[in-house]
Amino acid sequence: MLGKMMHKQLTISSLLEHAGRYHGGTTVTSVETSGEVVHTTWGEVERNARKLAAALARLGFETGDRAGTIAWNNRRHLEIYFGVAGGGYVCHTINPRLFPEQLIYIINHADDKVLFIDATFVDAAAKLRSHLPNLEHVILMGSRDEAAAEKIDGLLFYDELIAAENDDATWPEIDENLPSSLCYTSGTTGNPKGVQYTHRTTVLHSLGGNQPDGMGLAARDTVMMVVPMFHANAWGSPYIAAAVGCKVVLPGPHLDGVSLAKLIDSEKVTVSLGVPTIWMGLLQGLEETGSKAESLERTIVGGSALPTVMIPTFRDKYGVELIHAWGMTETSPLGTLNQLLQKHETLNDAEKGALREGQGRAPYGVELRIVDDENNRLAEDGETQGNLQIQGHWIIDTYFKAEDSALTEDGWFDTGDVATIDPDGYMIIRDRSKDIIKSGGEWISTVELEDIAMSHPSVAMAAAIAAKHRKWDERPVVIAVKSEGADLTEQELLESYKDKIASWQVPDKVVFVPELPLGATGKVLKNKLREEFGDVLLTEVD
Amino acid sequence: MLGKMMHKQLTISSLLEHAGRYHGGTTVTSVETSGEVVHTTWGEVERNARKLAAALARLGFETGDRAGTIAWNNRRHLEIYFGVAGGGYVCHTINPRLFPEQLIYIINHADDKVLFIDATFVDAAAKLRSHLPNLEHVILMGSRDEAAAEKIDGLLFYDELIAAENDDATWPEIDENLPSSLCYTSGTTGNPKGVQYTHRTTVLHSLGGNQPDGMGLAARDTVMMVVPMFHANAWGSPYIAAAVGCKVVLPGPHLDGVSLAKLIDSEKVTVSLGVPTIWMGLLQGLEETGSKAESLERTIVGGSALPTVMIPTFRDKYGVELIHAWGMTETSPLGTLNQLLQKHETLNDAEKGALREGQGRAPYGVELRIVDDENNRLAEDGETQGNLQIQGHWIIDTYFKAEDSALTEDGWFDTGDVATIDPDGYMIIRDRSKDIIKSGGEWISTVELEDIAMSHPSVAMAAAIAAKHRKWDERPVVIAVKSEGADLTEQELLESYKDKIASWQVPDKVVFVPELPLGATGKVLKNKLREEFGDVLLTEVD
Repeated sequence: MLGKMMHKQLTISSLLEHAGRYHGGTTVTSVETSGEVVHTTWGEVERNARKLAAALARLGFETGDRAGTIAWNNRRHLEIYFGVAGGGYVCHTINPRLFPEQLIYIINHADDKVLFIDATFVDAAAKLRSHLPNLEHVILMGSRDEAAAEKIDGLLFYDELIAAENDDATWPEIDENLPSSLCYTSGTTGNPKGVQYTHRTTVLHSLGGNQPDGMGLAARDTVMMVVPMFHANAWGSPYIAAAVGCKVVLPGPHLDGVSLAKLIDSEKVTVSLGVPTIWMGLLQGLEETGSKAESLERTIVGGSALPTVMIPTFRDKYGVELIHAWGMTETSPLGTLNQLLQKHETLNDAEKGALREGQGRAPYGVELRIVDDENNRLAEDGETQGNLQIQGHWIIDTYFKAEDSALTEDGWFDTGDVATIDPDGYMIIRDRSKDIIKSGGEWISTVELEDIAMSHPSVAMAAAIAAKHRKWDERPVVIAVKSEGADLTEQELLESYKDKIASWQVPDKVVFVPELPLGATGKVLKNKLREEFGDVLLTEVD
Repeated sequence: MLGKMMHKQLTISSLLEHAGRYHGGTTVTSVETSGEVVHTTWGEVERNARKLAAALARLGFETGDRAGTIAWNNRRHLEIYFGVAGGGYVCHTINPRLFPEQLIYIINHADDKVLFIDATFVDAAAKLRSHLPNLEHVILMGSRDEAAAEKIDGLLFYDELIAAENDDATWPEIDENLPSSLCYTSGTTGNPKGVQYTHRTTVLHSLGGNQPDGMGLAARDTVMMVVPMFHANAWGSPYIAAAVGCKVVLPGPHLDGVSLAKLIDSEKVTVSLGVPTIWMGLLQGLEETGSKAESLERTIVGGSALPTVMIPTFRDKYGVELIHAWGMTETSPLGTLNQLLQKHETLNDAEKGALREGQGRAPYGVELRIVDDENNRLAEDGETQGNLQIQGHWIIDTYFKAEDSALTEDGWFDTGDVATIDPDGYMIIRDRSKDIIKSGGEWISTVELEDIAMSHPSVAMAAAIAAKHRKWDERPVVIAVKSEGADLTEQELLESYKDKIASWQVPDKVVFVPELPLGATGKVLKNKLREEFGDVLLTEVD
């Protein structure tokens, strides 16, 4: 009854084999932790990754064992991505910005057998070492370093491990449903939770996410991955780059605007990926260096909402197209990308820009819906706000080591976001469901309030929160940080809302603070703000 | 041990569901058999396909049953593609140009339960009917037609079947490894052989074949499928178009250059797919109509070698990029596509054009190799010719109803082509292995000899064959048809080879004939030519 076509496994090693075989001479540029710029090739990356898989087997790795990484975006990290997964093991990327107790929890929960670290993290790893009883080896991503060896007992060296293996090591055969990589989400409450991807979900995410309406990488591109490789697999870009064989630029530890502007020009980067703050920094860096970023055609922007001013600035000043994307660790991560439809072609730049501010459409492979709190499907009219849920070929089912599925009874993953979806499928994140302000039965988006505040030239950062209110249950309050040297009153900032939103949505109050509390991934910790300022309206009335 | 991500099935219905949901209002233009131009939408196609699946179940179809089609490229054929496969059945597309005895063989071998036909084929189907004992129904793709009903006993009508079903019919759940469609190859010897694709291979072919370096369709495109839907699933373009939700133009029965030129302009076609003869016709049609084909950006060209003159003509006169592709019924069909690499960007137009004449590179998902007659792998240096073999996610294993695998012992499919592969993976088909001329131990490509002959203004068609030779075993002979009214001698044509190839490759003889024998798909039947002219050099010496 079943068809009789070849049935090959969708494996991560097959992506890299393609790059090695058909694009073996194509450059991978790596900014090392030392700052040195090294040029290697897909052929070399493929060979080293194969040797790494063999080295891990020699260290006693068995199928499914985890290897942790605490590292920047560089060539060895790229080899580890493919070598660990290709060997049948699980590449567990760790965010170095986490607090020590979180790092200890995650490494122990993942039961990492080895930990790959960049030189930057030798001291941090030395301090963690005694808290990681099941960890067998720490491996420094570089050549032998006696100073580091003195700090960490039994430290191994990546370059030595690779050198000890034969060039003709082969990839093992792997079932596509085996796990391949592991990322933990940094929840603001409770312990971090692990999402374990499989070979199949990773390859389908690569093929589905790189359609022309998606990331759209081609062999003629040079892609610079600014989004960290410890953050949701760098949005899948290492796998996609291998599948298409494009040139890759890995910028290492220095992600300031000037460093990036110089790399773009020297490596002739055509596409880049990163969070909005990176691009704000790049705009400054371009100003400072006088670069016009001539090679750069587009950037994929995600991780947090895109400040509205960025689209026209990049377009008009540098000819760079900003493609807004949305996803989560639980969604591999690509959930939506904002590319326009044929019917939008006749719109003018401003109209197109407005459409592109949203998070975009789902590619084939995932599906979205919005529901109310009782899980009833809501209208996709672009106005009705609901809890955003997602299904698809690269979406989580169950967190790592969890017993219960993370899904709703009818099989959807609830993202924790509140969104609208329009009839063409364009989705806009309106808020986190735990952040949205429920005022007298209406929902007020904190994202919109923050965007307006941050558009004010005298505001550096702003967060809107729900403050308790005796009559309306909740009312919006904005917590803002003034720009350096700026002079701004509460009344002036509140004035700026007047013509932009309905009057009942205007915040009741502005509180100026010297800085906002940030989590490990740079997101504002709104629960802390709610703890501190949630009663500010009650106090006033008293 | 296995990962815990969602495990969704890769089904053909999911491709169409995506189009229906996110691109439901996007146009599908269909030129009906009557010549009428009808505009429908993906939403309507999805609804009708769902209803067709329900109608087939009502007719007694069970999972895996086959439904044949003899039809042009039109909206009902598109609905049948998805409705049959989406219902869990197998869509068996049949080439109407086959001889009646071949049609009878194929329909009986496939055990088709119903046969969908366009109005064009009523008389032909009436003649076949009594030879098809297992066929239960013939279904006319249209509304009730009493004249047709009189010709075929128990004729059903597509529009009536659809109208009888509910709009809320649902797609069944399907295992991705179930068969979904069936195409027969028209071998020049022996009976035709069936290739049965699965849902999984079709979806992977769509995602892998539509990368930016592949077909590259986006939602902003309008794709005109000139390649017949009865020919290797129209190269997968119906599935790809659904996955990206682009506008589709189905040109119906009239594929002459003038008709196509008009459609390109009226529907603003951006991408088209077809065989070289179609594009030769289009060039004439553009001349005749004065059209500049302004909307057209590129065409995907495959099925036979691309005449070298076409690339610069389309590029310089119409700004259209020709993308040469190669594949076979056994390869779903996309095996290679010719897109350039980053390092080619500095080449001039002529150099780029020369590179693009070849069949291109394998996308991720398939792999090529060349071997000698003992299956030893040969050098990929761009010069060594060998038997081309292929492996991958959408490549045949076993022909329909065959007992033995079609693969080599080590799991490769031998294409029957002779090719070179260069170090970047660019493949060039040099000949069919049964056509290549083995002269004194050297291999002479008939493709190259034909290309030179056909570049002569006085030659309309030409075929090179191996003629037996007492000293060299085989020597090339060219069989040529002169252009209408042209005056050309054998010596003049042989002269034109002189500066283009090595002197030992120049044909020994030219035979002018009024016409060449063609097979059902328009290919020259070289076995017939060898029968007739294979001894022509022996005769001469005698």
